[in-house]
Amino acid sequence: MSEPLDRAADSSPGDCASEHDHAEFDRAMMGRALELARQARSLGEVPVGALVVRGRRLVSQAFNLRETNHDPTAHAERLALELAGRALATWRLDECVVYVTLEPCAMCAGAMVLARVGRLVYGATDPKAGACESLYRIARDPRLNHRVEVTSGVMAKECGEILTEFFQERRHFRKI
Amino acid sequence: MSEPLDRAADSSPGDCASEHDHAEFDRAMMGRALELARQARSLGEVPVGALVVRGRRLVSQAFNLRETNHDPTAHAERLALELAGRALATWRLDECVVYVTLEPCAMCAGAMVLARVGRLVYGATDPKAGACESLYRIARDPRLNHRVEVTSGVMAKECGEILTEFFQERRHFRKI
Repeated sequence: MSEPLDRAADSSPGDCASEHDHAEFDRAMMGRALELARQARSLGEVPVGALVVRGRRLVSQAFNLRETNHDPTAHAERLALELAGRALATWRLDECVVYVTLEPCAMCAGAMVLARVGRLVYGATDPKAGACESLYRIARDPRLNHRVEVTSGVMAKECGEILTEFFQERRHFRKI
Repeated sequence: MSEPLDRAADSSPGDCASEHDHAEFDRAMMGRALELARQARSLGEVPVGALVVRGRRLVSQAFNLRETNHDPTAHAERLALELAGRALATWRLDECVVYVTLEPCAMCAGAMVLARVGRLVYGATDPKAGACESLYRIARDPRLNHRVEVTSGVMAKECGEILTEFFQERRHFRKI
């Protein structure tokens, strides 16, 4: 379940990675999450991909499987959290970073707080259901017993485009 | 997975069940959810139980399994929704009612909106993390694409007591 992310990690030459290296690593991980989103699309699923990383090692990865699994809760990042807990044999993922192509909804943002996730990195914002900045700010709610550090907008254009294309195609096919 | 809830259903003599019969059915289902909460407690899990019903038939049932499954997302009602989707071969649970002993958190309230759950019935309120009336009102947010009808406070005393006792015992054992 856990494998080193060698190519991405190699881009950081020293022990103390600079801010630039961190940003580069974030982009590399988001690129991988985008590949997962493409796998979702190939199954006719809304294309969202997610992965969980700890110390630059991949812990788990998943993509949206709501239709395929008949599971209303099978969002990419919710599945990735479940798999990460299983891989690390704990529900406590405080040393983990979650990468996901779309701003998490209330369910997924709530799941990250429950899992005590250290950091969340997402791509496109979701004005209709996003719960990290758009409709709610659940990941940073001071009333809850954990706050998640949030970085947004990483490869936002690519992450948004794959969704826009998917919904355009779906509308097109429904018409014909 | 689906079985008739005969005894509870029998309490409604006609086709058009009265409000009293509905309330009685809700109490019968909450009693069953409380039994599930006791099963969680016997495993050392925070005692919360949940079930999904459609047309007075049991579709799925679950209890909190966060510690046992090493799954941060293994709340009772989230698991019950996953099982219900599998049982009915659809993520769309609009004809279903969810019974849960504790007010759902952001993750679980969000999951109910995603599943298009028709109605939610819960027992005790959760002032620290509840997302249906305490901290948020996610189940009835007009900005989201679905609203869940909510009934709260069914057997609230019993549902709350089992939790209070659990945490008191845990504190006691941690001291000694």
